[in-house]
Amino acid sequence: MAHHTLLLLSQDNAQYHALLNQAYLPGLTILEPRDEAGIREGLARADILLGEPARIRPRLKDARALKWVQSTYAGVDALLAPGTRQDYLLTNVRGIFGPLISEYVFAHLLSITRHLRHYREQQRHHNWQPIPYQSLQGKTMLIIGTGSIGQHVAGTARHFGMEVLGISRSGHEAPNFDRTYQTQALNKVLPRADVVVSVVPSTPQTRGLFNAERLNHVKPGVVFCNVGRGDAVDETALVQALRSGRIGAAVLDVFATEPLPAESLLWDMPNVIITPHNAGYSFPDQIVTRFSRNYLKYIENKAMEGVVNFDLGY
Amino acid sequence: MAHHTLLLLSQDNAQYHALLNQAYLPGLTILEPRDEAGIREGLARADILLGEPARIRPRLKDARALKWVQSTYAGVDALLAPGTRQDYLLTNVRGIFGPLISEYVFAHLLSITRHLRHYREQQRHHNWQPIPYQSLQGKTMLIIGTGSIGQHVAGTARHFGMEVLGISRSGHEAPNFDRTYQTQALNKVLPRADVVVSVVPSTPQTRGLFNAERLNHVKPGVVFCNVGRGDAVDETALVQALRSGRIGAAVLDVFATEPLPAESLLWDMPNVIITPHNAGYSFPDQIVTRFSRNYLKYIENKAMEGVVNFDLGY
Repeated sequence: MAHHTLLLLSQDNAQYHALLNQAYLPGLTILEPRDEAGIREGLARADILLGEPARIRPRLKDARALKWVQSTYAGVDALLAPGTRQDYLLTNVRGIFGPLISEYVFAHLLSITRHLRHYREQQRHHNWQPIPYQSLQGKTMLIIGTGSIGQHVAGTARHFGMEVLGISRSGHEAPNFDRTYQTQALNKVLPRADVVVSVVPSTPQTRGLFNAERLNHVKPGVVFCNVGRGDAVDETALVQALRSGRIGAAVLDVFATEPLPAESLLWDMPNVIITPHNAGYSFPDQIVTRFSRNYLKYIENKAMEGVVNFDLGY
Repeated sequence: MAHHTLLLLSQDNAQYHALLNQAYLPGLTILEPRDEAGIREGLARADILLGEPARIRPRLKDARALKWVQSTYAGVDALLAPGTRQDYLLTNVRGIFGPLISEYVFAHLLSITRHLRHYREQQRHHNWQPIPYQSLQGKTMLIIGTGSIGQHVAGTARHFGMEVLGISRSGHEAPNFDRTYQTQALNKVLPRADVVVSVVPSTPQTRGLFNAERLNHVKPGVVFCNVGRGDAVDETALVQALRSGRIGAAVLDVFATEPLPAESLLWDMPNVIITPHNAGYSFPDQIVTRFSRNYLKYIENKAMEGVVNFDLGY
């Protein structure tokens, strides 16, 4: 049996090591480096790396035996910068985050539509006062990105009785969407949406997608949610649209610069909800399950899950 | 064609009148009383009443032509007190509230599990700090009441990957539940549930269901949600269980006395969320759709929707 070596390059190395030791991974040696020397030694031998894209990126040039990188994230843009090495197999963990992102989107959306903040204020004053609300039923959600996360969010929206529209590069039909359109139709579709959710990765095509001109097309009062990548949104234009009331509320988990700088105007806007890029979280047990399945395919030269196309950027 | 007369006894009479005027209701005269004299006159003639149970209750004795009451609420306990007239057909609007109650339950549940309050505090201080969380996937929800509302909440829980257990009088299987049990199994099932949702109506069997003894059986840290009727819960015992941490959080839309008295200890408990009995709301357009369907069945002597069994109390 051929032998393979995995070098762990994650913030959760110890947890990954413990979980991988319990998995069925024939012929695999696992290296959990304790220091810089351990990392350098591992990079010389390992044909497989597992970790966060930003940790792996500076190590690529020294990974002399590299064949495969398993990212613990769905978004791998840190590994796609122009000039970055691309002579290896890169797999992300797409397919894992749909349920978590759905929880996030609907936690925030329902907390807005059902006035949870107002009721909390009222409770402080022992005030019993119903606030009128509208159901999600019959409202329209537009999701930018119809991949596995978008499809899962679409399924939840459908469960809540919403109409679900999608935008993707191809505009091809996708599960759980009532209608899908190509990106160039975005301005035409935006005015119909009560809720807009961006789940797009960072690619040359998505950068600045929501600029000032684009935001002129949203339905006044729309709820705008970004759980994809921050650079899809021009934050100056977003602040403007929030101030004018064109956008009713923004739920933002991702930003052009992360952590969001303390001086960003977004922090103090009353209709903005900011979370620190953790709408989805890479729970190590889920990642290890995915890695183990992929490893068995890797050693048998079978098609693996989550293979990234370097040209498309996802 | 036989002639029928409807007297409106709702807080939203004008809205109902406008909507009913647009519906197909052959042979129906609609009375929207402007004052007490108008009500008295209407009660003498109307064979049908539409309105909130608490508004209809004091009028029953004067409703001399009464055949049918369409309640605009799902809960009709106000019309079921011992000694209250029961010589007419009573229909509630069951089947309408499932989606609204699901929105409410998951708005609050996800806002707890995804730490929305903590992130709001952090945002105030421009603080970028991820907080560990767990997904709803794999958690267990126990729903007390497996009727149409319980079934809808169960369907949403399932969508989010939860195991769903149900308790009902009969213990019969019900859609969207993984397992259902009879009420006497409640103590046995309670320790398994991460989330308990009570949707039961007020009946002699449900009053005080969650007393001090019962609350000893919950899983420590459980999220307890009451969207049924307040008298199912002994509020003194609930306060005790919240103080001890046995119950991790309570989401309460209904109370033994409503509005919740200003001196209730529940108002100021940090792990209690109080809303003013509007998890579900009777949107007049939905009620009119239901009434219109029922009216056509009424005039043709067909089986109507939401007929209340006075003995069962729902």
